[in-house]
Amino acid sequence: MTQSTDLLAFGRRILAEQPFSTLLGAELTAFESGRAELRLAVRHELKQQYGFVHGGVLSYLADNALTYAGGSALSGQGIVTSEFKINYLRPALGETLVARAQVIHAGKSQAVCRCDVFVLTGTEEKLCATAQGTITAPTNFATKEP
Amino acid sequence: MTQSTDLLAFGRRILAEQPFSTLLGAELTAFESGRAELRLAVRHELKQQYGFVHGGVLSYLADNALTYAGGSALSGQGIVTSEFKINYLRPALGETLVARAQVIHAGKSQAVCRCDVFVLTGTEEKLCATAQGTITAPTNFATKEP
Amino acid sequence: MTQSTDLLAFGRRILAEQPFSTLLGAELTAFESGRAELRLAVRHELKQQYGFVHGGVLSYLADNALTYAGGSALSGQGIVTSEFKINYLRPALGETLVARAQVIHAGKSQAVCRCDVFVLTGTEEKLCATAQGTITAPTNFATKEP
Amino acid sequence: MTQSTDLLAFGRRILAEQPFSTLLGAELTAFESGRAELRLAVRHELKQQYGFVHGGVLSYLADNALTYAGGSALSGQGIVTSEFKINYLRPALGETLVARAQVIHAGKSQAVCRCDVFVLTGTEEKLCATAQGTITAPTNFATKEP
Repeated sequence: MTQSTDLLAFGRRILAEQPFSTLLGAELTAFESGRAELRLAVRHELKQQYGFVHGGVLSYLADNALTYAGGSALSGQGIVTSEFKINYLRPALGETLVARAQVIHAGKSQAVCRCDVFVLTGTEEKLCATAQGTITAPTNFATKEP
Repeated sequence: MTQSTDLLAFGRRILAEQPFSTLLGAELTAFESGRAELRLAVRHELKQQYGFVHGGVLSYLADNALTYAGGSALSGQGIVTSEFKINYLRPALGETLVARAQVIHAGKSQAVCRCDVFVLTGTEEKLCATAQGTITAPTNFATKEP
Repeated sequence: MTQSTDLLAFGRRILAEQPFSTLLGAELTAFESGRAELRLAVRHELKQQYGFVHGGVLSYLADNALTYAGGSALSGQGIVTSEFKINYLRPALGETLVARAQVIHAGKSQAVCRCDVFVLTGTEEKLCATAQGTITAPTNFATKEP
Repeated sequence: MTQSTDLLAFGRRILAEQPFSTLLGAELTAFESGRAELRLAVRHELKQQYGFVHGGVLSYLADNALTYAGGSALSGQGIVTSEFKINYLRPALGETLVARAQVIHAGKSQAVCRCDVFVLTGTEEKLCATAQGTITAPTNFATKEP
């Protein structure tokens, strides 16, 4: 078993321990050093009043993918998303959401990451949101929040 | 029936038409010109692996409250959140989340708003996230996305 | 001499050691625990092609005021602005810029702050930009950047 | 003369009309559809108290490069930067700053862009900041602000 398979398996165990990710149905489809991909099947419960995926679902996906990417570049326990910013680019209308995050720069205790969120219909991918944020590995925190 | 009661009733109908807001259990508890408040009871399904409310829930609440506040200051159909930024301040551990958003500046087609997200335990409120974003009333868009 | 006078004097010495702040002409007009105010007289050299103050001047003022506010709430050396976000609200047309920043939440090593930037004409103040960002007191960094 | 040469020449005329860009010494070194590059020689006047380039200089460069990139993808007059977010990644210590911005998504009236700011020492480039923002071509504004 390769190390990256181990990392993906580890990441999936973490995701399975997040009740909110289970409620939404997110899957971790790639996880390696500096990079993570989450997928989420679009269903009625994830939409807003116009039939598009709710912006809050996109921001959840971006937040979580950023945290995975940043966490892969930081050592220690208790990785947290300190902050992020998201721009919504077009209505998310399709079958599946894919969030791809990567590390832009990592120091000892912080990683700055980007995430693009796509909506897929068949084999067509459309970029529907893009995010940028800071992941922190707190050294002095008693509490932890990814 | 006062005008603000009408606005609150209108806002609640919109929220009831958002399947994702129903899935999470959000309630619109205040909605008037330039201001909105959303509440959400904390339950197991909304948490992450450490037992705190998942950051994605906080970002959903901030996003939606920003949209309501901004929408109250803009005319026309198809209010969308163009972008927002959120800083997580402390782990969200408590009974209820409250997101309070207000308009900072509104023009004809855009409103810039802020939102503070608190977690309540009994009567104690703690600020756990703060957000700032842009709400747009698109004039040329065929599609709409709040 | 009161403690807050000491703090203001300390802050002004720091500002005088910033060649860029001297080039622009910024003044620290208030500095106390959790709060800072910078002022800058508008002149031709600070403008863009339409005669308004350049957005980069507003972002400089916001960045620096955020750093002062955050720094007042953090101990240790080498305070840095990790990140910030700014929304431009209206063209900055007037005599003087005033940036007022305050701490929203401070932990051991990070403070999240907000800053409003006003443009003054006579006694009239108009809000022209608003910002939110993170100030960090790095414990493990060999380098420093405010 | 090619169209892109025309665009670069046009961009340089705009930059020359920005007194603040002249004060700082910025040069437009690339400008084509969807992309812009600004350069700025590091000198004492642009620094802060630790000898690094002031964050406000980096935010100016990012802001301006974002505006150029976005403006290249939007038609009409009065292009404005609505908002942007910047993460500072490492101290800017070197000879020249280079800001490279590109359009991520452009609609009729808005473009979302990213910008990386590098510091150069000899032939070595180091990423020192990264930004993301919204450029708007206002249709109803009487005023303009890049």
